[in-house]
Amino acid sequence: MGWLPDETGLEKCAANHVPLTPLSHLRRAADLFAGRDALIDRDVRVTYAEMHARVSRLVSALQARGIRPGDVVATLLPNTAPHVEATWAIPATGAILNTINTRLDADTVAYIFGHGGARIVLCDTAVVELAEAAISLMDGPGPAIIEVPDPQAGLHPTGRHPVYEDVLAQGSPTAPWVMPKDEWESLALNYTSGTTGRPKGVVYHHRGAYLSTLSQPISWRMTLFPRYLTIVPLFHCNGWCHPWMIPALGGAVVCCREITAAAIYEAIADHGATHFGGAPIVLNTIINARDADRRPFDHTVEVFTAGAPPPAATLAAIEPLGFRVTQVYGLTETYGPDVECLWHEGFDGLEGDERSAVKARTGVAMPFMEDVTVADSEMVAVPRDGASLGEIMHRGNGVMKGYYKNPEATAEAFRGGYFRSGDIAFRHPDGYIKIADRAKDIIISGGENVSSVEVENALMHHPAVSLVAVVAKPDGKWGEVPCAFVELKEGARAEEADLIAFCRQRLAGFKTPKRVVFRELPKTSTGKVQKFELRTIARDL
Amino acid sequence: MGWLPDETGLEKCAANHVPLTPLSHLRRAADLFAGRDALIDRDVRVTYAEMHARVSRLVSALQARGIRPGDVVATLLPNTAPHVEATWAIPATGAILNTINTRLDADTVAYIFGHGGARIVLCDTAVVELAEAAISLMDGPGPAIIEVPDPQAGLHPTGRHPVYEDVLAQGSPTAPWVMPKDEWESLALNYTSGTTGRPKGVVYHHRGAYLSTLSQPISWRMTLFPRYLTIVPLFHCNGWCHPWMIPALGGAVVCCREITAAAIYEAIADHGATHFGGAPIVLNTIINARDADRRPFDHTVEVFTAGAPPPAATLAAIEPLGFRVTQVYGLTETYGPDVECLWHEGFDGLEGDERSAVKARTGVAMPFMEDVTVADSEMVAVPRDGASLGEIMHRGNGVMKGYYKNPEATAEAFRGGYFRSGDIAFRHPDGYIKIADRAKDIIISGGENVSSVEVENALMHHPAVSLVAVVAKPDGKWGEVPCAFVELKEGARAEEADLIAFCRQRLAGFKTPKRVVFRELPKTSTGKVQKFELRTIARDL
Ligand SMILES: Nc1ncnc2c1ncn2[C@@H]1O[C@H](COP(=O)(O)OP(=O)(O)OP(=O)(O)O)[C@@H](O)[C@H]1O
Ligand SMILES: Nc1ncnc2c1ncn2[C@@H]1O[C@H](COP(=O)(O)OP(=O)(O)OP(=O)(O)O)[C@@H](O)[C@H]1O
Ligand SMILES: [Mg+2]
Ligand SMILES: [Mg+2]
Repeated sequence: MGWLPDETGLEKCAANHVPLTPLSHLRRAADLFAGRDALIDRDVRVTYAEMHARVSRLVSALQARGIRPGDVVATLLPNTAPHVEATWAIPATGAILNTINTRLDADTVAYIFGHGGARIVLCDTAVVELAEAAISLMDGPGPAIIEVPDPQAGLHPTGRHPVYEDVLAQGSPTAPWVMPKDEWESLALNYTSGTTGRPKGVVYHHRGAYLSTLSQPISWRMTLFPRYLTIVPLFHCNGWCHPWMIPALGGAVVCCREITAAAIYEAIADHGATHFGGAPIVLNTIINARDADRRPFDHTVEVFTAGAPPPAATLAAIEPLGFRVTQVYGLTETYGPDVECLWHEGFDGLEGDERSAVKARTGVAMPFMEDVTVADSEMVAVPRDGASLGEIMHRGNGVMKGYYKNPEATAEAFRGGYFRSGDIAFRHPDGYIKIADRAKDIIISGGENVSSVEVENALMHHPAVSLVAVVAKPDGKWGEVPCAFVELKEGARAEEADLIAFCRQRLAGFKTPKRVVFRELPKTSTGKVQKFELRTIARDL
Repeated sequence: MGWLPDETGLEKCAANHVPLTPLSHLRRAADLFAGRDALIDRDVRVTYAEMHARVSRLVSALQARGIRPGDVVATLLPNTAPHVEATWAIPATGAILNTINTRLDADTVAYIFGHGGARIVLCDTAVVELAEAAISLMDGPGPAIIEVPDPQAGLHPTGRHPVYEDVLAQGSPTAPWVMPKDEWESLALNYTSGTTGRPKGVVYHHRGAYLSTLSQPISWRMTLFPRYLTIVPLFHCNGWCHPWMIPALGGAVVCCREITAAAIYEAIADHGATHFGGAPIVLNTIINARDADRRPFDHTVEVFTAGAPPPAATLAAIEPLGFRVTQVYGLTETYGPDVECLWHEGFDGLEGDERSAVKARTGVAMPFMEDVTVADSEMVAVPRDGASLGEIMHRGNGVMKGYYKNPEATAEAFRGGYFRSGDIAFRHPDGYIKIADRAKDIIISGGENVSSVEVENALMHHPAVSLVAVVAKPDGKWGEVPCAFVELKEGARAEEADLIAFCRQRLAGFKTPKRVVFRELPKTSTGKVQKFELRTIARDL
């Protein structure tokens, strides 16, 4: 405790203490970078002065529609300019931003509307019917819809709801913003992907998002005036909090409604995009682009990739095209990425498999995190031996406030003073973390841990296999045994016994699946396989 | 404000809330960058693992000598490795770091010892006598001295005090650190330069220093693994808080005991120094270097310069040598620089006088500041017309807690919710601030403001003038009139009437000095002219 013997007059006051919030970045940029591009959405360009005015309009329009600090306002929008504006305006009303995945089914959207209690939803014309269907499924009154058409995508108003630009026109371009009085106030309510069950409502505070915005530029080698391309959906951890960072650096956000190779190359070549984040699948989109869609460019594009390690073949193919790929890792609960596979000159010179093995590591804590470690359930850190498994535990200012209306789940997640991620990993001798599997997906067979991911990787080498998921099947003798669910490539054939034999050549006996089932795999709207459903099926086999 | 209807279970806890402190950066670096250079001091290199161990030793050694959280520990040290270590270890003991200018006189050092209440002072052998003299001037018991010899500079222990390395040897390399429980706790006690009177004791909180460290990399175009050269004294706003930033980026601090051209070129060529801060005078040291001291290097060195705008001739000469200069501005009260003359592509292509006019601007708020503005004493902002004068006002998390044991001065400085800098400036139409003068130095003659700096600049063009300071002299008719104090160049001659006539050709009548006095000017230990002494002399002329 570093208090001085005499602290008289040294208290916080308006001059020396301002609650941390990303909103401060946009206020500064609106003045300092007034005439610079803030937002580029296909043919539309918006300067910082204009964006500030539009955000202020939306603030007052929301207030006119009854929104008060503490209310929840939802979005069901793709990565277009209005979504970026809403990302600022909803918090600037003192409201909580609840971005919802546009690919969800009506039932899940209804669940989120009900659980989060959104009073208004800004809704793209393409998903107005989804929102309407969700509202009709609800018991209580649902949110009021403000429809956001997208003429550039040929989406014109349905006529059934007030329209975004009309609502903006009613607002005042100089309306004052509601800044947080306490940086612990709630900024956003983000539902998890639902890979392991019902999505959970993760609550962000202004402080955490602000600190992420000042820390990510270091991890991302980002200097003044970046041009950030929105490939990560804004409904996914608020685009990993990156759009809130850009004004601090005077940069521009380049919107991308459809994630196609042509759109990505256009953003890079025409709008000078310098940075984007995305799943490894996005890298494959670029690699497999048709020649007609490719465009030349001079700079190196910095890419954050998360969700899974980038495969060696992907890295080998994309780096010569002008992209530098860094794997990051995080969860909705950690404001998106809070771990980075930090590259240092000790790795320079590595090539081929060695290079991709390093790039495939999960990494180390970003600067704004106090500690990200791998430990057992008693919080004892695992040895750094490249083998011993434990759970990834996160501690720092980039951890959520908790799960909304679920204090039990929150307390359980924070037990021991760390956020327990549910991800199982080991550590390399230099401290780099490497994810093995989700805790719920680990199979314990005869007392041995089997990583479902390892078995899946082995099966993926079989020429007939297109997609595979391995889960635990209860077993009288071994406790659990691996059970594989397989989608075959179009026209390909394989028998259960073939695949078991194929695995047996590559894996220890206890890791080899005892059953192989051919069927379509259940997936979340973002394409993650829902193993909890497969476990139910496996149990009854 | 933005609280949700139900915030149950969403409180701060160990997992999601860690008090902000620069100490976190070193803890992360000690693990992540263990084998990398943390510190280079001439022939000595210290890795992060080693530095962490040495800092921990010092923590436990200070504790063994009775230091407890809240105690003040002083330093009287040049920019050597032990000073950097102390900059970490004193806060890591929960104590308050009180770096003292080694060029002060014994009387002022005694004043600071007495006012700050340091219990221990780490003291370079070269200034042990200064510390001893200061202590002997004190009424109460002074601080205990730990002597820091510098064998690389030929400075061997006097034998009168415990020696730094012996003290370290007694400590434990794994001693735990005392981390702040509250980020508002006091981190450092830094006395101002004393340009306008007795130095004031400025108290820093951990939060402000931490936020500075995450914001300055953006302003300074700093990416991973910088090599920061310590030219700004660590006793000046803790080296503008820059050494606390370096571990967040995995960089190295390169120490510089004597600020010579040879040492600077060596740091750049041999140790790859990428960034340094310093007064414009340092730039002249480089420009005027002897050929024998110059060394070739490949990269561009990024320089922050403060204290005064870099003159056009200096910029023109230094930029082709491989240095990119950015003017910054700040005060001890704002953790060093919190305003930067941000360069953007709108300025590209400017050359000669136009270019240096832009580089001579004071600038705009850095990202971690909420607002830096120019306003009258009622807090009404001046128009952005390139002419109207007001006081520079700072608001944000980079403002001190207040003045130690001086709640009246603190309240006065924070009146109106901003920190009042006492610096007078105008704003350009694009918002860039340009300092005109210190408030105390403005002369009000016949109701017109006269900038003492403007009159000084006019006199500096006279070939005989070496140094000049202009202050107000009370006058029955005009209220005040300008009065100039001049040091002539060696061997040069000039009469009072000559200089008055010289000014009259360049300045309006009310700006022309009515008296010119030839004499040596009183200066602070850092070379700033003490106008308050000249005003006393002028009054009695
Ligand atoms: N770089 C990565 N490598 C491997 N897995 C990753 C990586 N980054 C993220 N993940 C996985 O994604 C998870 C975070 O995803 P997200 O928060 O979107 O929802 P979810 O965990 O899939 O859904 P739910 O929590 O509802 O089950 C992590 O826990 C981890 O399992
Ligand atoms: N870029 C700059 N251009 C002009 N003046 C500057 C610049 N940077 C700093 N200064 C001057 O330096 C001052 C801050 O100096 P510092 O805090 O070291 O002590 P001081 O103000 O000189 O001393 P005291 O407060 O004791 O009188 C500012 O108030 C300003 O007058
Ligand atoms: Mg999850
Ligand atoms: Mg001052």
